[in-house]
Amino acid sequence: MPEPIEFYFDFASPYAYVAVPRLEAIAARHDRDLLWKPIMLGAVFKTTGGLPNMAIPLKGPYLLRDVPRVCRFYGLVYKEPEKMPMIALAASRAFYWLQDRDPAEAIGFAKAIMHAHWGEGRNMDGAENVASVAVPLGIERADLLAALNDPAIKERLKNETQVAIDKGVFGSPFLFVDGEPFWGSDRLDMVDAWLTRGGF
Amino acid sequence: MPEPIEFYFDFASPYAYVAVPRLEAIAARHDRDLLWKPIMLGAVFKTTGGLPNMAIPLKGPYLLRDVPRVCRFYGLVYKEPEKMPMIALAASRAFYWLQDRDPAEAIGFAKAIMHAHWGEGRNMDGAENVASVAVPLGIERADLLAALNDPAIKERLKNETQVAIDKGVFGSPFLFVDGEPFWGSDRLDMVDAWLTRGGF
Repeated sequence: MPEPIEFYFDFASPYAYVAVPRLEAIAARHDRDLLWKPIMLGAVFKTTGGLPNMAIPLKGPYLLRDVPRVCRFYGLVYKEPEKMPMIALAASRAFYWLQDRDPAEAIGFAKAIMHAHWGEGRNMDGAENVASVAVPLGIERADLLAALNDPAIKERLKNETQVAIDKGVFGSPFLFVDGEPFWGSDRLDMVDAWLTRGGF
Repeated sequence: MPEPIEFYFDFASPYAYVAVPRLEAIAARHDRDLLWKPIMLGAVFKTTGGLPNMAIPLKGPYLLRDVPRVCRFYGLVYKEPEKMPMIALAASRAFYWLQDRDPAEAIGFAKAIMHAHWGEGRNMDGAENVASVAVPLGIERADLLAALNDPAIKERLKNETQVAIDKGVFGSPFLFVDGEPFWGSDRLDMVDAWLTRGGF
């Protein structure tokens, strides 16, 4: 059985949102599972000295033009979020809680969060906003809020983020294909070719 | 007559080297001239707070893996330069000196510098190394060395870099197509589509 493609991302990253449809198609085409791994880029930036893109002079304004343009190019709905960057702690913790009980449910939840934030422009910070997306999916509000305060879940997200840093992850999306690292939604054509040819 | 595609780059940027063959093909396909504009990213980084990629933890090692991989993907020769990042002052000044007397000669020179640095791994810092590439192209050594010390040429490079910053350039390669900005060799497919459709 081939290894799953590891998909590290921060919910605050628009290029993760942009990557998902093509990434899922590539994984399906090559009979690979896709292992979703939300992380907190803020912790990564403490290692790399990085800043959120939107906070960087010249780059921030460019990205506000590039992201909707990329969405038009790929036919994805886009609305500029009312609050950026998203603080993805609650969404990421909820994801790992859901993943442990039902990986498919966790992926459905992750896509719904991305759609609400990047497709509808909604503020997805914090437990209440996350619940507003989760509850319509059939996720129990009280269970969700309890999970978000569970020390084991908090620790899980910290650990996943540290593992990512230890593996060299410095941005989002960041993929590993049989150990080979690929950074950015712009590397998906190359990932596809890598899987087809078994490397190059 | 349509506007030329403006191509801002730093000779120290491997992704500029990677972009050139596809960028020239795209420009030719759409009957556009390509206006080469070397700049000093070091000056840009004073505005943005950026660092040379190779100096960034995790990102530096990744790029040393990504650049040769991208070159294999596109069939470009690559040899890791003995000295990185290249300090491109001399090469960039020489370019503008040549451009003023013969734009085609300047482009030939720029490609030869890129090939020497990224294809052959040669140190291209400073006047002597630049001359070692320029002289075999028929450029007079004494004239070149004089031009590199010409205050007007030094000022020209400063001005071109400042104009780039004022236009929002924060990385390399950076293109303007009828005023629309595109950053990165990864945007070339989009540039091609933009030219075909007249925007999207």
